Amino acid sequence: MVSKGDETRAVILDEALQLASTVGFTGLSIGQLAEHTGMSKSGLFAHFRSKEQLQLQALAHARARFTDVVVRPTLDAPRGEPRVRELLERWLTWERDTLTGGCIFVAATAEYDDQPGPMRDALVRDQADWVEFIAHVARSAVAEGHFRGDLDADQFAYHLLSLMLGLHHTGRLLADPRARDRCRTAVEQLIGDARAD
Amino acid sequence: MVSKGDETRAVILDEALQLASTVGFTGLSIGQLAEHTGMSKSGLFAHFRSKEQLQLQALAHARARFTDVVVRPTLDAPRGEPRVRELLERWLTWERDTLTGGCIFVAATAEYDDQPGPMRDALVRDQADWVEFIAHVARSAVAEGHFRGDLDADQFAYHLLSLMLGLHHTGRLLADPRARDRCRTAVEQLIGDARAD
Repeated sequence: MVSKGDETRAVILDEALQLASTVGFTGLSIGQLAEHTGMSKSGLFAHFRSKEQLQLQALAHARARFTDVVVRPTLDAPRGEPRVRELLERWLTWERDTLTGGCIFVAATAEYDDQPGPMRDALVRDQADWVEFIAHVARSAVAEGHFRGDLDADQFAYHLLSLMLGLHHTGRLLADPRARDRCRTAVEQLIGDARAD
Repeated sequence: MVSKGDETRAVILDEALQLASTVGFTGLSIGQLAEHTGMSKSGLFAHFRSKEQLQLQALAHARARFTDVVVRPTLDAPRGEPRVRELLERWLTWERDTLTGGCIFVAATAEYDDQPGPMRDALVRDQADWVEFIAHVARSAVAEGHFRGDLDADQFAYHLLSLMLGLHHTGRLLADPRARDRCRTAVEQLIGDARAD
């Protein structure tokens, strides 16, 4: 059962994520969140205790959202190449629709790659899991005979992840309207190279 | 002739870049730079006037360094596929050796993609020039007959840029020791697909 407190917490964390997606996690403070939600700072302190706790919980919330929007629906798709394609489509939706500032993990990476601490540790764990998930989905395509037997699934995962980062980069910063098409075309090429024939 | 003032400025801007490469441009302030260089805050104010001017000049300095380390040596390589390979190798050197925190443009992009202003404008210009430069080098490979005649050079540039971003991401955050090999392997695949045969 979801309690009233859990619901409130989820609503606050949604707001925190929206905020972090544009100002970054480092820019995320209890004071700013109070302004955005109209809640009192003391009320928010009761929920989160510290800025770091707020950041860590917002990141955990992002992970849960990502699981709902990307990971689960991907696993609902038929194993093999269709699942690889579903993964891309779900991620494209996540990148565009879920948060104002795009994929929060991409943004957070640039913030924390040189800043040791619990946030960086959590991010590394999340990102390592994501790369492994991509490789796992690629392996299912090998197992189904859609991709060739000698495919290096980890290499495939590196490549697919890179093309997603490329979209975040050129779509967001350069506001290139063809960025999504370019990303899709590049992934087609990657899948074409991976295919068994 | 390079004056004493220009030399001092270059040394300060080198320091500013090193600092920005780990704490970000937003974290770059005249106060922090004073601490790092041992210069007085008032002396630095005389050079830069404001935090924003400091950031903009540091970015312009990064662009000049990038031109020296990547663009010029690339253009010294023989036209065509060798030049495409030189571009990658030079960028790999830039990414690893030039600044502590890796490619400063990648880091800055995540900082400014949602923050309108002169810094974002300058970054967009720099990045658009870089993508165009990659496409231009790819076109030289088409002209030399190394790459096939119907190659979409802009698509090639998107793809290569993505693979570089992938390296920055997995090499820096995930500290994956195979990241450079993965990047090279993926670029080989991209070049293989582009080749005329």
